[in-house]
Amino acid sequence: MQKPADGRRRVVIESVEPEIDGGRFPIKRIAGDLVEVEADVFADGHDHVAARLLFRFQEVSTWTQVTMRWLGNDRWRAEFPVARIGVYLYTVAGWVDHFDTWRSDLEKRIAAGQDIRVDLLNGAELVEQAAMRAGRDDADELRRWAARMRATDDLPAAQSAGLDPVLAATMALYLDPAMETRYEHELRVTVDREKARYSAWYEMFPRSTSREPGRHGTFQDCEARLDYVARLGFDVLYLPPVHPIGHSFRKGKNNSTTPEPGDVGSPWAIGAKEGGHTTIHPKLGTLEDFRSLLRAAADKDIELALDIAFQCSPDHPWVHEHPEWFKKRADGTIQYAENPPKKYQDIYPLDFETGDWQGLWDALLGVFLFWIDQGVRIFRVDNPHTKPFCFWEWLITEVKRDFPDALFLAEAFTRPRVMQRLAKLGFSQSYTYFTWRNTKPELTEYFTELTQTRVREYLRPNLWPNTPDILSETLQVGGRPAFLSRAVLAATLGPNYGIYGPAFELGENKPIRPGSEEYLNSEKYEIRHWNLDARESIAATIASVNRARRENAALRASHDLFFHPTDNPYLIAYSKSSRDGSNTVLTVVNLDAFHAQSGWVTLDLERLRLRSDESFQVRDQLTGARYLWQGSRNYVELAPEGIPAHIFRVLRKVRSEKDFDYYQ
Amino acid sequence: MQKPADGRRRVVIESVEPEIDGGRFPIKRIAGDLVEVEADVFADGHDHVAARLLFRFQEVSTWTQVTMRWLGNDRWRAEFPVARIGVYLYTVAGWVDHFDTWRSDLEKRIAAGQDIRVDLLNGAELVEQAAMRAGRDDADELRRWAARMRATDDLPAAQSAGLDPVLAATMALYLDPAMETRYEHELRVTVDREKARYSAWYEMFPRSTSREPGRHGTFQDCEARLDYVARLGFDVLYLPPVHPIGHSFRKGKNNSTTPEPGDVGSPWAIGAKEGGHTTIHPKLGTLEDFRSLLRAAADKDIELALDIAFQCSPDHPWVHEHPEWFKKRADGTIQYAENPPKKYQDIYPLDFETGDWQGLWDALLGVFLFWIDQGVRIFRVDNPHTKPFCFWEWLITEVKRDFPDALFLAEAFTRPRVMQRLAKLGFSQSYTYFTWRNTKPELTEYFTELTQTRVREYLRPNLWPNTPDILSETLQVGGRPAFLSRAVLAATLGPNYGIYGPAFELGENKPIRPGSEEYLNSEKYEIRHWNLDARESIAATIASVNRARRENAALRASHDLFFHPTDNPYLIAYSKSSRDGSNTVLTVVNLDAFHAQSGWVTLDLERLRLRSDESFQVRDQLTGARYLWQGSRNYVELAPEGIPAHIFRVLRKVRSEKDFDYYQ
Repeated sequence: MQKPADGRRRVVIESVEPEIDGGRFPIKRIAGDLVEVEADVFADGHDHVAARLLFRFQEVSTWTQVTMRWLGNDRWRAEFPVARIGVYLYTVAGWVDHFDTWRSDLEKRIAAGQDIRVDLLNGAELVEQAAMRAGRDDADELRRWAARMRATDDLPAAQSAGLDPVLAATMALYLDPAMETRYEHELRVTVDREKARYSAWYEMFPRSTSREPGRHGTFQDCEARLDYVARLGFDVLYLPPVHPIGHSFRKGKNNSTTPEPGDVGSPWAIGAKEGGHTTIHPKLGTLEDFRSLLRAAADKDIELALDIAFQCSPDHPWVHEHPEWFKKRADGTIQYAENPPKKYQDIYPLDFETGDWQGLWDALLGVFLFWIDQGVRIFRVDNPHTKPFCFWEWLITEVKRDFPDALFLAEAFTRPRVMQRLAKLGFSQSYTYFTWRNTKPELTEYFTELTQTRVREYLRPNLWPNTPDILSETLQVGGRPAFLSRAVLAATLGPNYGIYGPAFELGENKPIRPGSEEYLNSEKYEIRHWNLDARESIAATIASVNRARRENAALRASHDLFFHPTDNPYLIAYSKSSRDGSNTVLTVVNLDAFHAQSGWVTLDLERLRLRSDESFQVRDQLTGARYLWQGSRNYVELAPEGIPAHIFRVLRKVRSEKDFDYYQ
Repeated sequence: MQKPADGRRRVVIESVEPEIDGGRFPIKRIAGDLVEVEADVFADGHDHVAARLLFRFQEVSTWTQVTMRWLGNDRWRAEFPVARIGVYLYTVAGWVDHFDTWRSDLEKRIAAGQDIRVDLLNGAELVEQAAMRAGRDDADELRRWAARMRATDDLPAAQSAGLDPVLAATMALYLDPAMETRYEHELRVTVDREKARYSAWYEMFPRSTSREPGRHGTFQDCEARLDYVARLGFDVLYLPPVHPIGHSFRKGKNNSTTPEPGDVGSPWAIGAKEGGHTTIHPKLGTLEDFRSLLRAAADKDIELALDIAFQCSPDHPWVHEHPEWFKKRADGTIQYAENPPKKYQDIYPLDFETGDWQGLWDALLGVFLFWIDQGVRIFRVDNPHTKPFCFWEWLITEVKRDFPDALFLAEAFTRPRVMQRLAKLGFSQSYTYFTWRNTKPELTEYFTELTQTRVREYLRPNLWPNTPDILSETLQVGGRPAFLSRAVLAATLGPNYGIYGPAFELGENKPIRPGSEEYLNSEKYEIRHWNLDARESIAATIASVNRARRENAALRASHDLFFHPTDNPYLIAYSKSSRDGSNTVLTVVNLDAFHAQSGWVTLDLERLRLRSDESFQVRDQLTGARYLWQGSRNYVELAPEGIPAHIFRVLRKVRSEKDFDYYQ
């Protein structure tokens, strides 16, 4: 074995956290966050060690250093701020700190009444060595300190010079870089804007937005719908694919393979003679109409999210322009999508094993860049798990290098490792299994995993009670109370959530057949006309839920999500707090859509930053109702007829228990 | 971001286990072990994946491949044997397996009654592509298969050719290497001989072995003592340093700084005018005497372990030959060892920050190689945590490259991270906190950590109830029952253990002063004469314990150590089984040295491979007593007057419950 370059670098650095797969992938944060880093830093023997956290914005070449604090058991911690969106790097450095060791030893020698004259000279040598590494002013100052330490004729003066905290502080600036151990990995942070962590999505089919039943909706109709979306309180409007739809093997209503004339087809069967992934469906309008919608939405603080589905109808221009991007069957025909024995002849998958994979990758990157050029910055990526992981890692890195404000939502409902890998390699948000997690144990286990394990460093859940593909059994059978409780769960368990509307707020709950999660008369295959003013709409409650999110910082993150026990299996209770602790929200939901449920919630008061002997107020953010509570056990009753959930802001007493206004 | 070299390598490999710090350190195994490896291996989409474990002996350049088995949830497992001592490498490879995907799809299509003619042609293409990668014979065979698949006029024959398992097996041999993903780390295994995992150490001061009181013992006296050590059943005889002892600042009896004339000094104050670390203390004998002892011990299956303590007395030849290897104080004197305010003026530490660190490292390596040249292969390293970690990593790697049978025991009683780092970087065995773990919760927690967490992959505990430096409080106050229970605990909780004798078996338990763990009249500072035939000796029981270890494979490892609950806090019960399950041992120890304790042990019968409805026999390996037990709850009573422990071999019924001999 070769000797190391310098065997005198005695510090070792291990177990740096956070670190994903040995630094292979970045962690994720939001601009303005403090990144907390811990590491084991230690050396042989009894010498003191100094540890520093090093960080830099990727485009800045010099490291900023932060002194790490010792936590005990060789563990050190420090934080650094990520102010800008983009990529930050961080690592850890360690030194044997001879001066600090010397100083600590000197104190012990003095306490034991030992002769310290030689020790003071030893210390002076260390100070003089540091002076050689220091800038001119500090060097002069250090040499003056050394001279005072050498003047041992006046021992008290020499001793107090050696122990002076000002000297110690200056010495700490000039640790010997030749003796520095640097952790072997430089770790990365992907820093996004806040919308990556906190967003409320509304999915809507543009072609179903016309005010006249039967007419194909347009982007202008969408503009008219913006007020409604804004009133509900959503800040991302997500549109299924807006491109020309293929005619070959077009699907009819309810996924029929024998379409009627006039059937509009699935927006995910992308491409026709008018164009492919960078073309607007002519019936929706023009590119200029699209940009107008984008601007109008922005005026209402709503961002558009586009659906990127990398697959082609048989009529897509690429089928002729780039036949090499598609797999051929042995009979020379192009391989359509299959899940044997099922065949999807309206869809041609792209062949990522093509010899021209590089050309294909470039073209697909081009699709994103085209829409970015139009002003889009949020992409919901359809089935990313059916394209190679290395492709997405490259593509997202390329896009974010120039457009660090771009966000990508991975629509991958698949196995956990696959979903986690997509999140690790760069997707900003991820669909989850929330859609199928209904009971208290299911929700508790799943959200503890998502928010309290290492997964939280890279996977940001985006919770959907429904999608155009998934009408869950809970919604099918539970009716209005189920829609309400699922909306509250989604909006409060995760800072990112979304609904597919207006089907959701209007309580659409008929499946195409029993046992199926497909909607009857799904908008995927036909134009629907929705009565937004229907009496049964829960839009008003959804608006209240979104307002509660805006007004409570606790609901805009999930770092400290905690489930409080209840004595009723249908009542789930959980709290979150804002980073600064000034805002705490306790949510209680009745998971039984059919019966009123009541019971006792046993609060972990410490988590809520409450003392056990003080009363506190909980104020329902949906109804305005106030309750005065005390101690850990408190009674809750929720009926399916009203809103089957409380979103309580927890208000600590400030002045007098007699005056509610003094809770905050 | 650069595109990858080949974007068509679609498989990803993650979370390979075992892996220490991202592959920075090797795991440890014994020659003859099977190494079990798991990994997450998956690809995008729905294609089937093939995973293989690759391994090779370091000096062999080609990998051996083992097919991995799918465990569900994208996890795969396989094992490989490590037959030889030395270093093995392992890693994981993955492929998208198009033929296996095709074959599985074909079965589904046939079941659905679809036309499969084109599919058979697709499959034939895959077979022909594999033929181009195959050796000549297999290529011919594969082309014949392809021809049969193409002959779709006889569809049943073509179909059965395509589905033939012989074809599938041949195809599995010719996965496309161009599409192979290799895990990014090559991981290492340090493979040792069995003594690294299973050893019983006896520490003995050679100078105290003379038969005449007062005379300085010699290596010849040690030879005469070998029968005794063999009778006790130990297989490693560990000698404190055997080198000339310094005279400057020599310590007197009981660590006095005012020695009497004739005081022999501490063997760890190494070096005098006669020589240093490669010289034999003249009063012990000659180098030839040492080699004779080594040979005589080997004849009794006892290996010598030498103590390597890298520190010098002021009289060590290096002090004059290499003053640059020692730190100077400001007054020009050499820095002695200190733990301020304590001073150890008889010891000069080596300065690992010397400019000539490379020369120093080479000299220290030379010390090991010198003793290896004499035939020594086991080294107990004194205070390795006061020398740089990178030094030990280099030194142990260098030694083991040429002498892979060399073993190193780290004597580091210090903080957990430091002890773990020394184990990771190469020490074969490690001293532990066992010496101070006495109660049932302490022992349960500590040994669960050592045997059931990742620590077990690299740290092999060596358990010592006492050392010349540590006479634990338990032994001081507990008398004979404490010595017996601590011996049984050490010998059965860990396959590696040791005692410092004859102080241990003779029950020496006087501290130098109350509250101290130092022995009164410690052999570190004086010659002792021990009466090995003393009535109070527990040598016979120790011999029984060591025989139980030799006769029960379960006691020669700790991989499945499991603590069974008891209803008495002073009774601890735990079991271990051999890898093949043929031998199971249940140990029960009374931790109360002062009272008889009785209670019920609640056995986890599944762990013991017992059925709940069958009776079984437990046979005490120390006394020969037999008990017939049934079910999980069984009664135990242990008194301090006898042996306060059972080491039960668990015997399952083989033929008839009426005949004890049919338990095995």
